[in-house]
Amino acid sequence: MNAITPASAERLVRVPLGERAYDILIGPGLIAGAGREIAARLKGRKAAIITDENVAPLYLGALVASLEAADIQASSLVLPAGEKTKSFEHLITVCDAVLTARVERNDAVIALGGGVIGDLSGFAAGIVRRGVRFVQVPTSLLSQVDSSVGGKTGINTHHGKNLVGVFHQPDLVLADTDVLNTLSEREFRAGYAEVAKYGLIDKPDFFAWLEANWKDVFAGGAARIEAIAASCQAKSDVVVADERENGARALLNLGHTFGHALEAATAYDSRRLVHGEGVAIGMVLAHEFSARLNLASPDDAKRVETHLKAVGLPTRMGDIPGELPPAEVLMDAIAQDKKVKSGKLTFILTHGIGQSFVADDVPSSEVLSFLKEKHP
Amino acid sequence: MNAITPASAERLVRVPLGERAYDILIGPGLIAGAGREIAARLKGRKAAIITDENVAPLYLGALVASLEAADIQASSLVLPAGEKTKSFEHLITVCDAVLTARVERNDAVIALGGGVIGDLSGFAAGIVRRGVRFVQVPTSLLSQVDSSVGGKTGINTHHGKNLVGVFHQPDLVLADTDVLNTLSEREFRAGYAEVAKYGLIDKPDFFAWLEANWKDVFAGGAARIEAIAASCQAKSDVVVADERENGARALLNLGHTFGHALEAATAYDSRRLVHGEGVAIGMVLAHEFSARLNLASPDDAKRVETHLKAVGLPTRMGDIPGELPPAEVLMDAIAQDKKVKSGKLTFILTHGIGQSFVADDVPSSEVLSFLKEKHP
Ligand SMILES: NC(=O)c1ccc[n+]([C@@H]2O[C@H](COP(=O)([O-])OP(=O)(O)OC[C@H]3O[C@@H](n4cnc5c(N)ncnc54)[C@H](O)[C@@H]3O)[C@@H](O)[C@H]2O)c1
Ligand SMILES: NC(=O)c1ccc[n+]([C@@H]2O[C@H](COP(=O)([O-])OP(=O)(O)OC[C@H]3O[C@@H](n4cnc5c(N)ncnc54)[C@H](O)[C@@H]3O)[C@@H](O)[C@H]2O)c1
Ligand SMILES: [Zn+2]
Ligand SMILES: [Zn+2]
Repeated sequence: MNAITPASAERLVRVPLGERAYDILIGPGLIAGAGREIAARLKGRKAAIITDENVAPLYLGALVASLEAADIQASSLVLPAGEKTKSFEHLITVCDAVLTARVERNDAVIALGGGVIGDLSGFAAGIVRRGVRFVQVPTSLLSQVDSSVGGKTGINTHHGKNLVGVFHQPDLVLADTDVLNTLSEREFRAGYAEVAKYGLIDKPDFFAWLEANWKDVFAGGAARIEAIAASCQAKSDVVVADERENGARALLNLGHTFGHALEAATAYDSRRLVHGEGVAIGMVLAHEFSARLNLASPDDAKRVETHLKAVGLPTRMGDIPGELPPAEVLMDAIAQDKKVKSGKLTFILTHGIGQSFVADDVPSSEVLSFLKEKHP
Repeated sequence: MNAITPASAERLVRVPLGERAYDILIGPGLIAGAGREIAARLKGRKAAIITDENVAPLYLGALVASLEAADIQASSLVLPAGEKTKSFEHLITVCDAVLTARVERNDAVIALGGGVIGDLSGFAAGIVRRGVRFVQVPTSLLSQVDSSVGGKTGINTHHGKNLVGVFHQPDLVLADTDVLNTLSEREFRAGYAEVAKYGLIDKPDFFAWLEANWKDVFAGGAARIEAIAASCQAKSDVVVADERENGARALLNLGHTFGHALEAATAYDSRRLVHGEGVAIGMVLAHEFSARLNLASPDDAKRVETHLKAVGLPTRMGDIPGELPPAEVLMDAIAQDKKVKSGKLTFILTHGIGQSFVADDVPSSEVLSFLKEKHP
């Protein structure tokens, strides 16, 4: 992790999923060349771009121009920004737009935006005509390092997050690292929580590298590209080992069981909490909970908290503005979370930095008393 | 095809799709034993039954009792009957019911009904938690011989039929041949069109057997079970050769391109036309169109029409009550049908009885003038 590639270098991570294999390109200025890259991989010549109201004024024009220069006929749909867009209502709108554009099986849906746009349009791409081609152009750090890789798509319902969706791998991911310059500091930090997550799962050296180099990652340039490429490689490794989340892939949910409960408790209101912030608090909680169960040293939990705090992320439930519901309500949200099997709680716990594991039989009483203790 | 198995015999067709392989059980009284068969194949112990208002009063009680006797906790949702139920609106209702029943990945959605209920609930089973287990208990002849086998699920949109859906194979199909006794004569005939279809695709001996034995198939007993088992076997063979419809599976659409256009032209109004009736007319048209292109003898088209007419099916556009839109409008519906690739029309044509093939480059001008000629 210490050998930094030159600033100009574009990085390629290949996700080797047999007939569903695809490339992730990471580097500056990729949107300008998107048409060429997509045309080289697509049989069809039509694309329906799905984006949001924040991203559209910044990058939609450039993407459309690049597609048209490569002889791909592009239509676009601009949706409201934010987590609430991951709904059945907007799914219907996207499917309708894709069908109106007469996108067929060899044509593509292109997601231009963060994880919200990626999850929603990937779902639509997976169900229109029982599956059309799909290209991710992730524009948030979180989507570049996490949501655009691996094929999980979906929407939220009043029962919880991501409870409805499909596995539908993209055919190409174009992570243009320049576009991160317009992302807010807060959203960049939120994405950084997922970068740190890969270190905490099973790459202690990467976590140590981040502790030393995080300022360079935030500043942009070579360290940023390196951190994104390392994250995509880490995610790819897990996905290839367990494409449909029957086992090892659950490790990617480190910090997410607590995080999702906090997102639900704040009604997905991004003014209070965004996904990556929930994950940051959740990862600290997961390390503390593991320490409480005598599985890991409390020093590791402290080290995680210190680093996430240094970059400016929230690390405690008390850091969330406004009132939180009581611990019992958080517990209910956890029980309805999709990582529950036959009534038993599945949790990602850890033996220390970079030593996470899947625990299948965590008693809910333990979780509840821990939550009560930590509740602000 | 001449050796008929004894009346009491239950038949088993196995669909050998690797890790997605499953059994189709065909025979009398299977609903009473459903709980046992399902419990033997399911890890979970919860099931959400989806059915319609016609089927529920007849068979829902027996199915619930059988599941509970096998220690499976069952919830039920009763939807309106008819093609209009295959909509986004009802999909949302089904997903909500499945989530409310807390069905997890190893639990099941059970479709109890015809192809409408099967297509809709199979879609929901494919997307809730990105896929839960799925059991088909088809109750119409059409669903027993066609829609419950092969994993195609979906709903309709105002752009056309089955344009949104997923491939999601069932884990078990239970075709109780007794329940067909309450099916209307008209719906039985409509399902019979799909039985005849398998003969016309590539089994001329089966078609000849049907010409000789169709009255026994309608009467019930051994000939009916035999015809259903032969149909399931034929469908399974095609599905195994091409699970995701990239090639040979398209043959199953014999008669369907015309049929779907007629369904759209009659606004999916079952008082005027049901799916199998559209297919019957469509198969006659496909044979006549092939004859017009000098690919087959007009005698074969005549033979198809004679048989379908004998069983009481409509065979001409003029048999549909009410006005049909002009040929140009039918042509538009065909062009928007999902079997269009890069603008060219894909049609299932034939060299004669049991000699169908996929034609990729049928000029739309030929189809249009044929439609004008046949228009009542
Ligand atoms: N599918 C998966 O495997 C997976 C993994 C992790 C997270 N997710 C999902 O991802 C979502 C969160 O993704 P996110 O954090 O990207 O949220 P997001 O899509 O809401 O983007 C965050 C905000 O940044 C804006 N934005 C994005 N790119 C920008 C840019 N370049 N310049 C300026 N503004 C920009 C967006 O408009 C939005 O307001 C959640 O719904 C989460 O469930 C999915
Ligand atoms: N998925 C596939 O591969 C596939 C293949 C062919 C057709 N289909 C779809 O199947 C649908 C047509 O299926 P269908 O013909 O079964 O329609 P359907 O589900 O509407 O059933 C026909 C009618 O019969 C009633 N009914 C069903 N079983 C009964 C019984 N045992 N006793 C009394 N009434 C009963 C129903 O309530 C309904 O009114 C169409 O939507 C078509 O697109 C799908
Ligand atoms: Zn996440
Ligand atoms: Zn059919």
